Amino acid sequence: METSSEIRVRYAETDQMGIVHHANYVVWMEVGRSDWMRARGKGYAEIEAAGYRLVVNGVQVRYRAPARYDELVRVRTRLKEAGRRKVVFGYVVERDGQKLAEGESVHLVTDDQGRAAVLPEALLSLIRGEGP
Amino acid sequence: METSSEIRVRYAETDQMGIVHHANYVVWMEVGRSDWMRARGKGYAEIEAAGYRLVVNGVQVRYRAPARYDELVRVRTRLKEAGRRKVVFGYVVERDGQKLAEGESVHLVTDDQGRAAVLPEALLSLIRGEGP
Amino acid sequence: METSSEIRVRYAETDQMGIVHHANYVVWMEVGRSDWMRARGKGYAEIEAAGYRLVVNGVQVRYRAPARYDELVRVRTRLKEAGRRKVVFGYVVERDGQKLAEGESVHLVTDDQGRAAVLPEALLSLIRGEGP
Amino acid sequence: METSSEIRVRYAETDQMGIVHHANYVVWMEVGRSDWMRARGKGYAEIEAAGYRLVVNGVQVRYRAPARYDELVRVRTRLKEAGRRKVVFGYVVERDGQKLAEGESVHLVTDDQGRAAVLPEALLSLIRGEGP
Repeated sequence: METSSEIRVRYAETDQMGIVHHANYVVWMEVGRSDWMRARGKGYAEIEAAGYRLVVNGVQVRYRAPARYDELVRVRTRLKEAGRRKVVFGYVVERDGQKLAEGESVHLVTDDQGRAAVLPEALLSLIRGEGP
Repeated sequence: METSSEIRVRYAETDQMGIVHHANYVVWMEVGRSDWMRARGKGYAEIEAAGYRLVVNGVQVRYRAPARYDELVRVRTRLKEAGRRKVVFGYVVERDGQKLAEGESVHLVTDDQGRAAVLPEALLSLIRGEGP
Repeated sequence: METSSEIRVRYAETDQMGIVHHANYVVWMEVGRSDWMRARGKGYAEIEAAGYRLVVNGVQVRYRAPARYDELVRVRTRLKEAGRRKVVFGYVVERDGQKLAEGESVHLVTDDQGRAAVLPEALLSLIRGEGP
Repeated sequence: METSSEIRVRYAETDQMGIVHHANYVVWMEVGRSDWMRARGKGYAEIEAAGYRLVVNGVQVRYRAPARYDELVRVRTRLKEAGRRKVVFGYVVERDGQKLAEGESVHLVTDDQGRAAVLPEALLSLIRGEGP
């Protein structure tokens, strides 16, 4: 499953180079991830309610072409890897089919105290999209 | 004329109090303003292309109730005052009809060098929504 | 008492107009407020540890001149009003003595559940700078 | 040469997990890079004045331990690779000697129109720290 998130570029997201500041792509990837999880029937909010956290362990972004104010960009999000201790998401940011950036985020499962934890199969199946 | 902008609260917009950090409302008001101007047929992008800038001279926000991660909030934007040297926008941020915040932004017209300027009647009429 | 906070303008804080985006002044005011409270011997962190919150009820900023990337700006913060239910801070942002902006923030006292609360005299005296 | 940048964690940089939101590390790395270049006698501002841009081509961050509001963190920045078309910086974010994160950013040289360019030897020597 892949989800698609539409984002209208905000003025506040530009920098003095006249393009979107590169740190915002990390935020956009998170927007994509949130939409992905909501599409699975569980938003981050619900996972947190269950006492689990997906803590970001790493991110990487490769920039291909700039985005500009007021443009409509799209973040396509997919699950690349899903284990009970570690989950990896992949992202493509594009505008009218042109790739602007691609990225990846690695997440470790913890409890709400930040200690390493193991995601219950029920939540993991949900993430993997395996039906009941 | 009033425009309505839907915003899905981003995780990055929350703070350790568990609610949306107050500075983000200023960004949301700008999102509302951008949508307002696009609805008028001229986005900020086009006004800038014509060599004019609407420089923010002041903002104020009054907070009523917190917004939280993943909620859908709505920014309603209206023109409160429109002169050739100064434009004032008013905003209401709400969720399911409940008012979360209200704000105002005052803008001065400048050229692209930041010098005080006078907006041509054509662009002003456009902003005011007066037809040809 | 007035505190002074030095801030080096970040690239990420600029926008495509080539100046600091106006929403960042609200963040800078908060930096000034944090420094102010730390100078009083109690940072926000400690007030939160005691179970109280100073919830932002309103902010306003008036912009005078733009700040630019890599400049050193200064936020001068002072207490304008201090009650057990409501506290008001005033701010001046300047660069080399030139005023760039001035602002104000209004805060209401709540408990950690967000319910209106009354600040104990001890914490209030601390804020007011009244010695033992 | 390595530079060291001290950053006081801002309240606005936290998220509802009670820690610094991960996207801010990308901004902090940029703060480190700016300080690095200023220490070399040329800030970004001057490189841009000369008509060149170091466009961010990629970033990656690996998170080790969280940072929290009001803490003093340190970004140590070093040049990992310096060519006339591509420059790579490496970063370590730490608090009291404990590593919180490490990252890397890859930059391509362009002109002020965003076209690939080749950095003059003079500016490159400056970056490399080779004396006259």
